[in-house]
Amino acid sequence: MEIKRFIKEKSQLINQALEDYLPNQETHPARLHESMRYSVLAGGKRLRPILVLEAAKLIGANEDDILEAACALEMIHSYSLIHDDLPCMDDDDFRRGKPTNHKVFGEAIAVLAGDSLLTYAFELMTEIKNVSADKVLLAIRELAKASGNRGMVGGQVADIMAEGRNIDSDELEYIHTHKTGALLKASVRIGAILAGATDEELAALTTYAKEIGLGFQIVDDILDIEGDAKKLGKDIGSDLDRDKATFPAIYGLEESKKMASATCKRAKEALSIFGEDAKLLLQLADYIIEREY
Amino acid sequence: MEIKRFIKEKSQLINQALEDYLPNQETHPARLHESMRYSVLAGGKRLRPILVLEAAKLIGANEDDILEAACALEMIHSYSLIHDDLPCMDDDDFRRGKPTNHKVFGEAIAVLAGDSLLTYAFELMTEIKNVSADKVLLAIRELAKASGNRGMVGGQVADIMAEGRNIDSDELEYIHTHKTGALLKASVRIGAILAGATDEELAALTTYAKEIGLGFQIVDDILDIEGDAKKLGKDIGSDLDRDKATFPAIYGLEESKKMASATCKRAKEALSIFGEDAKLLLQLADYIIEREY
Repeated sequence: MEIKRFIKEKSQLINQALEDYLPNQETHPARLHESMRYSVLAGGKRLRPILVLEAAKLIGANEDDILEAACALEMIHSYSLIHDDLPCMDDDDFRRGKPTNHKVFGEAIAVLAGDSLLTYAFELMTEIKNVSADKVLLAIRELAKASGNRGMVGGQVADIMAEGRNIDSDELEYIHTHKTGALLKASVRIGAILAGATDEELAALTTYAKEIGLGFQIVDDILDIEGDAKKLGKDIGSDLDRDKATFPAIYGLEESKKMASATCKRAKEALSIFGEDAKLLLQLADYIIEREY
Repeated sequence: MEIKRFIKEKSQLINQALEDYLPNQETHPARLHESMRYSVLAGGKRLRPILVLEAAKLIGANEDDILEAACALEMIHSYSLIHDDLPCMDDDDFRRGKPTNHKVFGEAIAVLAGDSLLTYAFELMTEIKNVSADKVLLAIRELAKASGNRGMVGGQVADIMAEGRNIDSDELEYIHTHKTGALLKASVRIGAILAGATDEELAALTTYAKEIGLGFQIVDDILDIEGDAKKLGKDIGSDLDRDKATFPAIYGLEESKKMASATCKRAKEALSIFGEDAKLLLQLADYIIEREY
């Protein structure tokens, strides 16, 4: 399937860039850099960096000029997984089929590796070349807002506060638009901002990104019930076990599937202003939302 | 004493700015914002923001234009304390005479409050006005480098790796120049960079900052043995109990005191190019290094 090959190729490009940007593991203190590399280079589909690059290319930027931003998004994602897996959070032992960071390096180093990756993402953003400083600053602000208290971390806290009690659909939407959606949206927007998108282009891409973010999360919840543990690299049903807020828990499985398909449709409609040029982003929407079930 | 009154007045200005910049505690999710505010607004001498402001003013900037940067430095400092106090790190129950963040909000929220403060510091940096985007980007890079894997976090990891074994003076210096020194140095340099310092001015201020950073840490180690628990708001001797690397442990108490005084002298000499204008920074060096013993 064409899009799968495309994602595989792109993820190799991104893996190489991540490998190059991350300090090598002899850098003092070695244990920290080993730990950072362990999690970032553990694989994954690299969806966020791919969204950065494809949004930027759609607007007309050169991929090479945006690579730092693409990798910064992956580092933020990776830090969030390390902290999410900690014993005081989700207490997960495995991630992508490998022992989680704190299982290998201990909790203290895992906390600090996460902190470093978050910080390093911002450092990398300042290394972007061939883009005006004004645009880079806007992109940094976007990244900070999407990752922080009003974005991803806000969603994680809301998720924690929701555990073990019934929540309504508004709260579920808040959790997911923030916990997962914010960073996916930021990926697309950062690519577009750095490439110099017009307001109209940015608005269209923002709608696209919001919809795939929501769809992504609904599908994640569905896969948590229906999926294949091996493919996901984590325990099936673990969210239900923990009494976590999920779409199937509130809307039921069938309705959740319909909702996911609707987000995919709306995501693709939003890109109509770009015509054929948006082909890859359209395929990515299908891929992200129609995956595996 | 003049400098003490000055610090008190400045810290009130900074407290007000921090209060204004931090999201109020009704902002959703409230528990996160309560936790962020709890630690940032717990007091402290606000040395880092004061250094940002005074370095910028020495070069000729308007204090109001630099306030975001000053507060960003304090947020990074505050996040590092929250994560440092966690059970998996120093496991401290009290900080500045109050229960530590995780004691009040639980470990998960404490980790996330730290993450948010770190992220919010970068967001604030992008809000700096009346300074060119180029200079703001340089300042953001400085902040990221000083806080991350090659800066403060690097120092924390080296400190953890050193626990319970004998380390040499090189390793002790690495730990302290990174764990505490990097952020103090960045405070001075960020103020200077945003104010448009020349290379010569920046070099002089960098030497000043390195020396006070080193002096600060030596004095901290001395106070940990000799100090007044009430003033420090933490247990005396706690570093020795934990077999931590300290200057008195390697050099002895008297020699450590001499070393501290020497750093103060070198810090002040570095500012000779500024003449009388540097008066406040000279007094700050005295204050930071000659405090309390």
